[in-house]
Amino acid sequence: MTSKKKEKYQLIVEAALKVIAEHGYHNAQVSRIAKEAGVADGTIYLYFKNKEDILISVFREKLGELIGRFHSSISESPTAEEAIRRMCRIHYSELENNVPLAYVTQIELRQSNLELRHAIGDVVKTYIHLIEQVLRRGVEEGSFRPDLDVKLTRLLLFGAMDEAVTSWLISGRKYSLSDQVEGTVEFFLRGLKA
Amino acid sequence: MTSKKKEKYQLIVEAALKVIAEHGYHNAQVSRIAKEAGVADGTIYLYFKNKEDILISVFREKLGELIGRFHSSISESPTAEEAIRRMCRIHYSELENNVPLAYVTQIELRQSNLELRHAIGDVVKTYIHLIEQVLRRGVEEGSFRPDLDVKLTRLLLFGAMDEAVTSWLISGRKYSLSDQVEGTVEFFLRGLKA
Repeated sequence: MTSKKKEKYQLIVEAALKVIAEHGYHNAQVSRIAKEAGVADGTIYLYFKNKEDILISVFREKLGELIGRFHSSISESPTAEEAIRRMCRIHYSELENNVPLAYVTQIELRQSNLELRHAIGDVVKTYIHLIEQVLRRGVEEGSFRPDLDVKLTRLLLFGAMDEAVTSWLISGRKYSLSDQVEGTVEFFLRGLKA
Repeated sequence: MTSKKKEKYQLIVEAALKVIAEHGYHNAQVSRIAKEAGVADGTIYLYFKNKEDILISVFREKLGELIGRFHSSISESPTAEEAIRRMCRIHYSELENNVPLAYVTQIELRQSNLELRHAIGDVVKTYIHLIEQVLRRGVEEGSFRPDLDVKLTRLLLFGAMDEAVTSWLISGRKYSLSDQVEGTVEFFLRGLKA
């Protein structure tokens, strides 16, 4: 993609995120997304096959950025314990600071069909593998239990954080999600530590 | 409801569970459910307003049974620790032994609209409150940390178990879910214990 094309692509992705979060996926007509992005309806189809393709792209782009942030934060962590802490902090604060993204990941994407879920599952898998890496590192460092079932525990950590975000969102964001980092990490680390 | 009416109602609920699990909610026509239940199409509408109402009823009935089982098992547990163990065992084994129910709770219900989610949310809330009770009991007994954030931790436990079930299902049930009870409970109890 040329940089101008890339720019327009990004513009559409941002517009789609906003429209889907506001109106829901089913009511997010392509024409609405085009209007929000300030482009012609036809332009959308130069970049995306259909609405489903837009949703997958929004998810890939946005979660891709997030995973990039996890990656660098984790690799810079001096210990596995600190990596768990940073991971939870990024997970909660990024979604707290981007409510449209939180709506799309926690609500809209869960309603979608199985095909869509599989495409999205690949992105989630990357994150779950990252968690696994941190767990393995902790076991190797000797700070986490040597008998830790990393394949199971990576799911428990992801599921726990995911539910904390969803509940915060469904409750109408009545409390600070970032304030839940400490309690979450405390629970995790006690469960993990040797 | 008379006992004969109740019987027919149950028959339709069981048929709906089977049809929704097999064909997905969107393709689960009322006529298909009626055929599976061995009743006339019109009969369905004597018991349910529409397809959405059937789905909510399936969820309420089936999860109601499950929650009843949680309730009695937990109240009979000699300690909060044992209650956590039994809760996880019931959660995993009941869904492992009823794959159609697992499909409906983990996949079909997540795709549904917000209204439906709210109705279903009430049932999930009952379960989350049960978890909270166990946590409070553990803190009172002195076996769980006195500074435990029960409001947050109830979500972490629910989310962790929920993700373990979903991943098992999406993986194509390639391993035993019940075999994950021990690892899950070990992780939970370390996180909870004083």
